[in-house]
Amino acid sequence: MEIEITQERLSKALNIVSRVAATTKTGLPILNNVLLRADGNQLSLTATNLELATVDYLAAKIQKSGTITVPAKLLAEFISNLPKNTTINLLAKDGKLVTTAGKYKSTINGIAADDFPELPRIEEKNAVTFKVESSSFHSAITEVIVTSSNDTTRPALTGVYFNTFEKSLYIAATDGYRLSEKKFIEDVTSDVFAVVPTSSLQEVLRSVSDDIDDIEMLFDETQVRFRMGEIEITSKLIDGSFPDYRQLIPKKTDINIELNKAEFTRMTKVAALFARESGGSVICETRADDKTFSISAVASELGENSSAMEANVDSDGKVVLNSRFLIDAIGAIDEDKLNFGFSGKLAPVVIRGAKDKDYTHIIMPLKS
Amino acid sequence: MEIEITQERLSKALNIVSRVAATTKTGLPILNNVLLRADGNQLSLTATNLELATVDYLAAKIQKSGTITVPAKLLAEFISNLPKNTTINLLAKDGKLVTTAGKYKSTINGIAADDFPELPRIEEKNAVTFKVESSSFHSAITEVIVTSSNDTTRPALTGVYFNTFEKSLYIAATDGYRLSEKKFIEDVTSDVFAVVPTSSLQEVLRSVSDDIDDIEMLFDETQVRFRMGEIEITSKLIDGSFPDYRQLIPKKTDINIELNKAEFTRMTKVAALFARESGGSVICETRADDKTFSISAVASELGENSSAMEANVDSDGKVVLNSRFLIDAIGAIDEDKLNFGFSGKLAPVVIRGAKDKDYTHIIMPLKS
Repeated sequence: MEIEITQERLSKALNIVSRVAATTKTGLPILNNVLLRADGNQLSLTATNLELATVDYLAAKIQKSGTITVPAKLLAEFISNLPKNTTINLLAKDGKLVTTAGKYKSTINGIAADDFPELPRIEEKNAVTFKVESSSFHSAITEVIVTSSNDTTRPALTGVYFNTFEKSLYIAATDGYRLSEKKFIEDVTSDVFAVVPTSSLQEVLRSVSDDIDDIEMLFDETQVRFRMGEIEITSKLIDGSFPDYRQLIPKKTDINIELNKAEFTRMTKVAALFARESGGSVICETRADDKTFSISAVASELGENSSAMEANVDSDGKVVLNSRFLIDAIGAIDEDKLNFGFSGKLAPVVIRGAKDKDYTHIIMPLKS
Repeated sequence: MEIEITQERLSKALNIVSRVAATTKTGLPILNNVLLRADGNQLSLTATNLELATVDYLAAKIQKSGTITVPAKLLAEFISNLPKNTTINLLAKDGKLVTTAGKYKSTINGIAADDFPELPRIEEKNAVTFKVESSSFHSAITEVIVTSSNDTTRPALTGVYFNTFEKSLYIAATDGYRLSEKKFIEDVTSDVFAVVPTSSLQEVLRSVSDDIDDIEMLFDETQVRFRMGEIEITSKLIDGSFPDYRQLIPKKTDINIELNKAEFTRMTKVAALFARESGGSVICETRADDKTFSISAVASELGENSSAMEANVDSDGKVVLNSRFLIDAIGAIDEDKLNFGFSGKLAPVVIRGAKDKDYTHIIMPLKS
């Protein structure tokens, strides 16, 4: 293999691909490596952690086709430190990758490409395909992954559930204590019911650069592929059934108030400081007599705290929430005004943006 | 105690002072606290870790003088989350601090000020005093602390040695493998020989804001005080003799070359990637025949690497250095061109800026 490519293109691609190398701890040394494959007029860079594979296809001047694998992080750091605007020559020879860029030269010991794991394949023509603007993808996924779980004993909850319902594609995630759902794409013609690992979606989010307009998603029975510009990320789906979550979203709530996001955030953060000893529980309260919404922390060894804001309320109500979940919920919604709805101490709290009704965030109350 | 003060002034002061609270692990709960003292027209905030005490003196509207101590981090976080431009009322009552700011209210449980540790006192009129522009202070201290040690078995090396020599105040630090020295203030009239803990100097650096013009340093036999605007930091000195370092600085070196800092940095970083297995050792080499300076890493399991730049050299030479020390040395000097001087494999390497001859950085070679 012998190719020529500019420092900037190669460095950018290596930074994306090398993140995936060796994120599992299987001890298989070749998973630390990036696979370089030169063929036709294209150089492909591939890394995998067995759950997920990232491939970046780069146009390059191929003098001799071929393959090699070398430690991904070492090559990425080496290339990123070279001067910008230089042309880099990569030559695979005797199991080593020789890199030359002006007066900079390195020889990196590799492993033969034959030992690299098989990559997941998707039969693209049979796959269910959706296409979405990358900005919509970014905001929808960011809003929803907040409520997914880290608890690997319930695998389905560590992912985001892509599901079609009444001709729209929805995404949802829950950790058992809270839940969020977004109407993602309207007027879809095929059905999908698939749980995509949250970690894979985070990797997709990190790999989307500003110059990407659209993201294609291709689902088969066991895998999903995200295609964006020259990058393809293919992930296994989570094999497990997602809870029938739609019934958990209240149709309506008794008390509904509109709150200023900045002030709501501040009040919650301040109360959270005093709620550390009580596991983060804070009391949200409406009072009709002086038209206020208040948040307070239970008195503790540290002290106590309360803050209030004016709100258009007609009845008294009280609910106890985990302040961290409340901060996450408020933070997920990118609007100046939020709707906060609740029905007493036991029913789920519903938080939405004042304008965007496609996103719903639910928090289960704590016992008071 | 009852006072009124603006959120911004109080928050800034608490952020500085609360850093010092509880940085030791003595388990003495009151060290987590900040001492508030209202007296005359001044509020003082004090925190100490027994090595170091920081006091911030703030002008405030004192309605009632008095003292209290409360958990520093809690108060700092609470105040920093309150809206800007609000006036905060602080009231000490029954061992609690009641804070009110509009509709935000908190009560923090305190500890009586009598239990707060005695603060170090300096007899200012007998102290040896120096004054320096804060920008000069910042650059000089930053250049020198790089070479101080973390090894607490040799306490004197964990500090910076302030010492007068031929009518100038010098500062120096060494970890036994490398050494740096800066001529700090010229034409001084008093002598000082004192080792200031590097950790205290780092705290001073963090506390200097842009609006501070000058820093005063007051030394007595066992302590030093840094005074900058409304802040005073008082630190114990290290009780131990600093090595007689001046004799270790070579008067001259055999091979002396001028190098471009950016390229020198890049070459060192690239070589360092390949030097990880060999404890970071890289080979610096001059060649008279093709007028080059090169840095290479010893061949290892990973591979090997070399890079070169043109340099005005008349003789061949070679020295092996720790790449991390070399990166630190280059990084400490804020100039485009550096001088690199060495005399074979065993003698110390001398690195200086091409212009500023007041700063000297020495690295001992590794065995090759």
